[in-house]
Amino acid sequence: MIKPLEWVNGKLKFLDQTKLPLEEFFCETDDVLYVAESIKRLAVRGAPLIGIAAAYGVALASLSPKYSKAIEVRKYLVSVIDLLASTRPTAVNLFWALKRQRRILDTWQTGSVPELQNNLLNEAKLIHQEDIEMCERISTFGAELLPANCSILTHCNAGALATGGRGTAVGIISKAWELGKLKHVYIDETRPLLQGARLTAWEMKKAKIPATLIVDSVAAVLLKQGKINAIIVGADRITMNGDVANKIGTYLKALAAFDNNIPVYSALPVSSFDLSLNHFDDIPVEERDSSEVKYIEGMGKDGLTEVLICPEESKVINHGFDITPARLLTGLITDRGVCRADKESIIKILL
Amino acid sequence: MIKPLEWVNGKLKFLDQTKLPLEEFFCETDDVLYVAESIKRLAVRGAPLIGIAAAYGVALASLSPKYSKAIEVRKYLVSVIDLLASTRPTAVNLFWALKRQRRILDTWQTGSVPELQNNLLNEAKLIHQEDIEMCERISTFGAELLPANCSILTHCNAGALATGGRGTAVGIISKAWELGKLKHVYIDETRPLLQGARLTAWEMKKAKIPATLIVDSVAAVLLKQGKINAIIVGADRITMNGDVANKIGTYLKALAAFDNNIPVYSALPVSSFDLSLNHFDDIPVEERDSSEVKYIEGMGKDGLTEVLICPEESKVINHGFDITPARLLTGLITDRGVCRADKESIIKILL
Repeated sequence: MIKPLEWVNGKLKFLDQTKLPLEEFFCETDDVLYVAESIKRLAVRGAPLIGIAAAYGVALASLSPKYSKAIEVRKYLVSVIDLLASTRPTAVNLFWALKRQRRILDTWQTGSVPELQNNLLNEAKLIHQEDIEMCERISTFGAELLPANCSILTHCNAGALATGGRGTAVGIISKAWELGKLKHVYIDETRPLLQGARLTAWEMKKAKIPATLIVDSVAAVLLKQGKINAIIVGADRITMNGDVANKIGTYLKALAAFDNNIPVYSALPVSSFDLSLNHFDDIPVEERDSSEVKYIEGMGKDGLTEVLICPEESKVINHGFDITPARLLTGLITDRGVCRADKESIIKILL
Repeated sequence: MIKPLEWVNGKLKFLDQTKLPLEEFFCETDDVLYVAESIKRLAVRGAPLIGIAAAYGVALASLSPKYSKAIEVRKYLVSVIDLLASTRPTAVNLFWALKRQRRILDTWQTGSVPELQNNLLNEAKLIHQEDIEMCERISTFGAELLPANCSILTHCNAGALATGGRGTAVGIISKAWELGKLKHVYIDETRPLLQGARLTAWEMKKAKIPATLIVDSVAAVLLKQGKINAIIVGADRITMNGDVANKIGTYLKALAAFDNNIPVYSALPVSSFDLSLNHFDDIPVEERDSSEVKYIEGMGKDGLTEVLICPEESKVINHGFDITPARLLTGLITDRGVCRADKESIIKILL
């Protein structure tokens, strides 16, 4: 399986995902600033993976030989945590992982620096291990659900590249493949950032799973033709009534699946449920930079190249995600089991 | 208004659309082989415009000084028509326009070459003029239909660049703008070939119509937010029960519009109705080359550049169009007026 991030001999080793699928380049660092910068420029991406990287980043910082007195170390680590928190302002897992490291720091009473270093590293490893197990549980529950010899459509990348483990939506796919239940995977390219074409297609290639890449609009034709048995996607956030915010394009695919009587599942850890959100109108709409739409990066004759695809002065609206209403979802595949996308079922899973 | 093709001083002048939106380059030629090659390589594109270009091409060929005897001229023009017909195998307007020129040739009895030249040129001009008028009628009927201060979403390019006149779907938009009824246009970029980003965005810029470019998936969010009052698209083919084959992505947008109670119109000349097709299952599914998906062309640092966006060995399915079932269409805007998308209404318009 792909390991986008590992702790190796006191250093953090990670795949620079900005170079995928054209180059497999691993970075190795003991410098927390480099970790922060790598999260910021999306070399490390995917909410769970960002959280894990940040937790290891705090552990790395504690190993810095620059500070040896307890008071210096404490001050330094507080500012490191603040710095890491500022890399990606909307990543929930990032704040959650940093809060866990902050608690380790706050409960450190002995003043023994080696003890603190040990505790922070163990906490990072625990966060990582928990994520691996979460992915395994989701993948097992999901793969059980699928019919034999099935073809799956997935959108964006909820794969090993986004998590500490085998991924959520893509984890289900790879698990189904291992169990001999999977026939084929269709991958939405996922404009604007093309995570499907760049990342999921690469993961399928690495895992030798038979896959076909399509532009986002083609999924509707394949659903109509009966070539797809189920859609499985991830989730960025989910409300208590089962409305799912996920990568832009998910809502359209769910509409097409509904129109053709094909099941749609969202795969997510129960930590993605947001108790403060009752309904999709409560989810804020995120707009991203227009350059993501106007310029496309890929491999040109002379290496990675960016091309402009429209009149340069074009105005753009670039929404990062959309909301799929619960009524279009067949079910939710969580690390505690499968449930229907309604309040009653969700509460039952959570309690 | 944009004139992508004109007859000027005995020559055919046309915009090389492969260079849009980054360069406005007009070709001028008296060589029918150059016209044929330009159709083949999509420098001239859009079904109606291809037909017009081919008709002028036959007229150009008749002016060639290489042949002066009636029998030579006739033989040459027959082979020219065959050559032009082979440039784009699926373009209905192309065959239809060439059939009209062939009839001119077949009814030529006097043996006077200047008379034939004159007749062929007049027929080409007539085909062109008829197309201009068809666009005007569709645009007027469509603009009448729209509410005041409306915002329209369009897909692909059914504009002046595709026709002899102001276009069909985009013609309605520009007419509504002239009448002061239009507030804003949203343009789907239209993967894989990005005709929205490349062509429609450029047309809106030239016409100074306020427009926003979006990736294909974003339309669903704007429809949900109530930012779009109607969707207007063209049509490649339409069955007698009102199912519309159009550029891939249309079906998904119609589903999203239906889900949010927004009207969807297809704009088309009555010549697009296919009496041989009763139902969308009768429409053949076209698959296009995978390179259209895997490589994207745009303006790089050193001019037009192509970049690879996925693992090179990726398998791709590339459907050129999809079928929007009649039940999702609010109406059809034809050059004979507006009608519902059902058999009874369509027959009434046609008779």
